[in-house]
Amino acid sequence: MSLRALLLNCTLKKSPETSSTEALLREVKEVMEKHGTECELIRVVDHNVKFGVSTDMGDGDEWPQIHDKILASDILLIGTPIWFGKLSSVAQMVMERIDGMLSETNEMKQLPLYNKVAGCVVTGNEDGAQHVTSGILHDLMQTGATIPPNVNCYWVGEAGPGPDYVEAGTTSKYTKTLVQYTGNNLVHLARILKANPIPAEGNTSE
Amino acid sequence: MSLRALLLNCTLKKSPETSSTEALLREVKEVMEKHGTECELIRVVDHNVKFGVSTDMGDGDEWPQIHDKILASDILLIGTPIWFGKLSSVAQMVMERIDGMLSETNEMKQLPLYNKVAGCVVTGNEDGAQHVTSGILHDLMQTGATIPPNVNCYWVGEAGPGPDYVEAGTTSKYTKTLVQYTGNNLVHLARILKANPIPAEGNTSE
Amino acid sequence: MSLRALLLNCTLKKSPETSSTEALLREVKEVMEKHGTECELIRVVDHNVKFGVSTDMGDGDEWPQIHDKILASDILLIGTPIWFGKLSSVAQMVMERIDGMLSETNEMKQLPLYNKVAGCVVTGNEDGAQHVTSGILHDLMQTGATIPPNVNCYWVGEAGPGPDYVEAGTTSKYTKTLVQYTGNNLVHLARILKANPIPAEGNTSE
Amino acid sequence: MSLRALLLNCTLKKSPETSSTEALLREVKEVMEKHGTECELIRVVDHNVKFGVSTDMGDGDEWPQIHDKILASDILLIGTPIWFGKLSSVAQMVMERIDGMLSETNEMKQLPLYNKVAGCVVTGNEDGAQHVTSGILHDLMQTGATIPPNVNCYWVGEAGPGPDYVEAGTTSKYTKTLVQYTGNNLVHLARILKANPIPAEGNTSE
Repeated sequence: MSLRALLLNCTLKKSPETSSTEALLREVKEVMEKHGTECELIRVVDHNVKFGVSTDMGDGDEWPQIHDKILASDILLIGTPIWFGKLSSVAQMVMERIDGMLSETNEMKQLPLYNKVAGCVVTGNEDGAQHVTSGILHDLMQTGATIPPNVNCYWVGEAGPGPDYVEAGTTSKYTKTLVQYTGNNLVHLARILKANPIPAEGNTSE
Repeated sequence: MSLRALLLNCTLKKSPETSSTEALLREVKEVMEKHGTECELIRVVDHNVKFGVSTDMGDGDEWPQIHDKILASDILLIGTPIWFGKLSSVAQMVMERIDGMLSETNEMKQLPLYNKVAGCVVTGNEDGAQHVTSGILHDLMQTGATIPPNVNCYWVGEAGPGPDYVEAGTTSKYTKTLVQYTGNNLVHLARILKANPIPAEGNTSE
Repeated sequence: MSLRALLLNCTLKKSPETSSTEALLREVKEVMEKHGTECELIRVVDHNVKFGVSTDMGDGDEWPQIHDKILASDILLIGTPIWFGKLSSVAQMVMERIDGMLSETNEMKQLPLYNKVAGCVVTGNEDGAQHVTSGILHDLMQTGATIPPNVNCYWVGEAGPGPDYVEAGTTSKYTKTLVQYTGNNLVHLARILKANPIPAEGNTSE
Repeated sequence: MSLRALLLNCTLKKSPETSSTEALLREVKEVMEKHGTECELIRVVDHNVKFGVSTDMGDGDEWPQIHDKILASDILLIGTPIWFGKLSSVAQMVMERIDGMLSETNEMKQLPLYNKVAGCVVTGNEDGAQHVTSGILHDLMQTGATIPPNVNCYWVGEAGPGPDYVEAGTTSKYTKTLVQYTGNNLVHLARILKANPIPAEGNTSE
């Protein structure tokens, strides 16, 4: 059974600038690929994604393509840096576009992320990772995704300004463990749900 | 396949005071019982649960019994009121005790809540439900639980002081839908995971 | 003593679309104007503000003008809608640009918002206002602003999708009180700090 | 002009156990005492403080004495450890008791914390400090306190389990700066407000 994963990097920096979040996303991607998962990583800010809560905001909006890739995936992984203790504005822009999916359903009349799994990758200098992953995973759960155990993969340094993940975090034993847990559990649960979908009973819009 | 669910009401008020959180928990309980799930509801503040992060804080601590009931359950549902936009102190005390479970494992060397599912029930006068459920579900996910879609069942009223759920919320069509989604999806996912446990691969302490 | 206030509306919708956040901001503005405060209201999304954390991101970035207006003001009021329980992406983009001010100082070597006061206005359908204002006011406090009492002016409706502030909230007695508290206390504290600035002792970058 | 400060340590551990939060609170206390501020530090869990939201929960409740000390102080400093990314249950219990003060007023019919200032001290192994201080300072602001700039004094270590502040944080240059900012600004603003109280105009319960 072949799985597909979509990884959205919500850094503020356009390619080819170095992104710590992308570095950590790539580590989780590698774990999922070892399981044969077909992965695509998109740096959102390289695309013309517009502010809004409709699926197509028009005027060259490139969200509709990302929207369709989400629907075609079994696994959705959102990556974001931390700014002022919160998810990046690009990540929140993505969540607002996903909010627009609350008015859509799958063919079973369930919310569109049913039978998909979701996780979160966060990098920051110092503080805020769990607050950020809490909010993002909750949004995705509200849109129908299942959240496997231990799919909040993050690195933060000591209190105060300091080096980034790519400068100081890549040897973190704790983060290495989270990379394994996140990558493996996303695949495990995606496989389980693909073979055993959630019944359309008591969870449809009708 | 028979399932067991544990529902923890983290109201500040001892029995037999009316608890809006308990009223909403009972509605979700009824949905799970229709599926044949054996449910137990505990009002934590009626028991001598102590502050701390060890499994047994001694001196008459009654957490160990609740701890064992969690391990014996397939479904864990935490209910809490909102105070100042946050989970109740009793709910946070429970989460701190669950934090102590991070040093324990199941027989597969996974965290103790693996192959269990978790949800959250929240009532408040006006504001803060999603913030509260985000934090609680994230904690449980970190301890190994799987979070099914749409298992944040809540009611809040309009901005400002006002009536409780039992006084003003029980006719809310939105909350009634959340009751159905939460109860049904907890059972659906618990069944799926009981029949198809998460492989102990890339997610154990070894 | 004449005061200046800058009000930033962080709605996702460009003018002239109706913005509930703008409607509530205007109510607070009116209170401040009764005190003779000179107020300017900017809808951020009408301007070419770029993602980033530097004061000038180049390429036509219009943040520098807003940055200078902040420095020229005694009062800063951030208004945002709630999406998925969080501040809007536009509001977070603004906070990221304000994050860039952490590397600047006033002429006393204090952070640039010292001796300014800040408040927050939030509108949403149902839930999340206090979580949003907590985060925004904290960011501004970290950048040097003083937070007067009761400057979190908000409206949210009952749980679930529903009408906006302009459709259903404008008669809320609670929100009307918050409008008064917010507008009056921003002016009171701004006056007090203008006449009695915070000494540059133990709070400078040297 | 003599000032009084009350420091509440909301650790889970009773005296004489070592508390990192207490260690950091003492550093801020020392700064305030250099200004001649009379400081009292209370470890809440050493007292019989009960769950609830009334000022006196009866049955030996020792909150009323702490309540009166808050009213007699110019400065309120809440200290808490982080558990699962959130304030401690003891800290939340304290905030719930302070929530009960929302039904009280000072002699000007303002909320009881008007013309008082508040700050927050947080210690944790790794993550969550700003989320915790955001929530606590917001609660106090809602109860009438003024929040001076840079009064969120914290230390957290790198991602993952690790040493406490007393074991690994006391040499942090960043935290040392926050100690100075917090202690000095609490005193500066308390002095300013004592000499220049907030007018009872547009912010009273009548």
